[in-house]
Amino acid sequence: MRGAVIHAPFDVRVEDRPDPVVVEPTDAILRVTAACICGSDLWPYRGINEVSEPRPIGHEYCGIVVEVGSEVTTVQPGDFVVGGFFASDNTCPNCRAGFHNACDHIESYDGCQAEFLRVPLADGTLVATPEQPAADLIPSLLTLSDVMATGWHAATMANVQPGMTVAVVGDGAVGLCGVLAAKQKGAARIIAMSRHPQRQALAREFGATDIIEERDEAGVEAVKRLTDGIGADAVLECVGTGPSMLQAIGSCRAGGMVGFVGVPHGVELPIRQMFTRNVGVRGGMAPVRAYLPQLMDLVLAGDIQPGKVFDHLLPLEQAAEGYAAMDERRAIKVLLTP
Amino acid sequence: MRGAVIHAPFDVRVEDRPDPVVVEPTDAILRVTAACICGSDLWPYRGINEVSEPRPIGHEYCGIVVEVGSEVTTVQPGDFVVGGFFASDNTCPNCRAGFHNACDHIESYDGCQAEFLRVPLADGTLVATPEQPAADLIPSLLTLSDVMATGWHAATMANVQPGMTVAVVGDGAVGLCGVLAAKQKGAARIIAMSRHPQRQALAREFGATDIIEERDEAGVEAVKRLTDGIGADAVLECVGTGPSMLQAIGSCRAGGMVGFVGVPHGVELPIRQMFTRNVGVRGGMAPVRAYLPQLMDLVLAGDIQPGKVFDHLLPLEQAAEGYAAMDERRAIKVLLTP
Repeated sequence: MRGAVIHAPFDVRVEDRPDPVVVEPTDAILRVTAACICGSDLWPYRGINEVSEPRPIGHEYCGIVVEVGSEVTTVQPGDFVVGGFFASDNTCPNCRAGFHNACDHIESYDGCQAEFLRVPLADGTLVATPEQPAADLIPSLLTLSDVMATGWHAATMANVQPGMTVAVVGDGAVGLCGVLAAKQKGAARIIAMSRHPQRQALAREFGATDIIEERDEAGVEAVKRLTDGIGADAVLECVGTGPSMLQAIGSCRAGGMVGFVGVPHGVELPIRQMFTRNVGVRGGMAPVRAYLPQLMDLVLAGDIQPGKVFDHLLPLEQAAEGYAAMDERRAIKVLLTP
Repeated sequence: MRGAVIHAPFDVRVEDRPDPVVVEPTDAILRVTAACICGSDLWPYRGINEVSEPRPIGHEYCGIVVEVGSEVTTVQPGDFVVGGFFASDNTCPNCRAGFHNACDHIESYDGCQAEFLRVPLADGTLVATPEQPAADLIPSLLTLSDVMATGWHAATMANVQPGMTVAVVGDGAVGLCGVLAAKQKGAARIIAMSRHPQRQALAREFGATDIIEERDEAGVEAVKRLTDGIGADAVLECVGTGPSMLQAIGSCRAGGMVGFVGVPHGVELPIRQMFTRNVGVRGGMAPVRAYLPQLMDLVLAGDIQPGKVFDHLLPLEQAAEGYAAMDERRAIKVLLTP
């Protein structure tokens, strides 16, 4: 089969790879319908995370089951499925508590930017649609494997409740999905922080009521101006840098929560400021499997259309161009079709 | 009147001070029934917080109103009242949201280890009992001005829910009140971390089901052993040092919350560990006024007896001995009567 392999920074190639096969009786093999490039794929692409040897890449996908191991019971060949960006058993105490990201048997399985994919722990990782979805729903279903689930997680960790004012730091695909999640959870006012016209427009389409272009301390002051000096009830931190975290905490009202999902790089939490203003911080990798059933229902019902984050659709063979477009911020989010 | 004044580290004296008078129309003057020494009073006592000049000390009290300013409407002379350790207006947006610790008009007013006290913003700070309380309820009512409210805040910020397993780091009076708060909120299992027999006994009386004597990494492992390797659902951090915070975060299950109320001294939050395990951190000064009505009801109904934390009762004139006993950990908590 054909599949994307990262060889070194800025060097992603689509090449021949062995067809995946069932290794464990809990595996499923999928024909990938669509995959996408994640902001976190850019860490190795940019050389910030080491690439010590060539390896298959990609962890956001949806597809059709073509084969299952002998112990798989919840999905079967022919099912259209979405899975989280890591495998989980969905039965251990952490999964039962809704935190699959700490599953006792968590397993990563990069390499979905390809024609076929082996998914470990299929019963605990995949969720099937009731029937084959219409083609125009594929992009939105694809987002549930990571980016939309991650935006949802940010809003969940920030404890977004109906009527709240919510600020979102980060206008990447996750931040935009965070806007959509806040809207779906009933936020009355959503402040998106963005200085890109195209992203601002999508943020508004997803439910943002206000756009702030300022950053850092000026961004904090702008949120305060919009909120009678109080700050936002909940803040979604969807970047993962030190300045973005400080902007998020500073924008949050006393007693509010910051939900953070950007993988922290160089973040030092200002404990004294958190204490003085009683601003909480909570987040991490999204427990995708926990959210999949609910989010799938919302997509199938037409209530949310997170697939709008895809502004570049490319054939798998042009994956390298997709990475370049994401890296250079020419694309918000790239969808690849094998 | 007589009142305690801190002159320098390890130098607290009870001396003649001017009787307080109504300065603002929102003031109330109290005759102090009982006051106590707070763990945070030990920061200046030990010279960790600077004492640049002699100043009245003490911020936990209850008493009888003897005079009110012209704008005070909710308490009147003769009322028995408890107030928070800072004054708040109880009307600004932050107070209305339940976070009086960020009140727009917050004001500190140390000096309650004395015969009389001026309380600013009396309407927003004081709560009166329906009638004069029995003498044996005074110690418990006194704790509501800070220590019990602070333990309650830790449990609230840690999101303690019925049936949870809760761990409490810190066996000072706040930590012990945290045990009591967790019990009152319905925790099924409460793990107290303590190596002092007397404090262990009180923790058990307050509802602790398990005692752990180990600290740091060994303490974390002990919590894990008691919880099938999962960790506690909620953790109360009631110390404020770097090691205690790490112990709290390490003891918390994936997806759980650490409520912290120890004033942070040298704390660096382990953001990567928080992210990987999705452990949240939230806390700060207790919004005492928000909790006072509910906690007062619980004390008056006999449901909680936080006054048991007082193991040293001294006349105000012996305040210096009270400070020494707290500093040397001969006392859990000292009650002073003018």
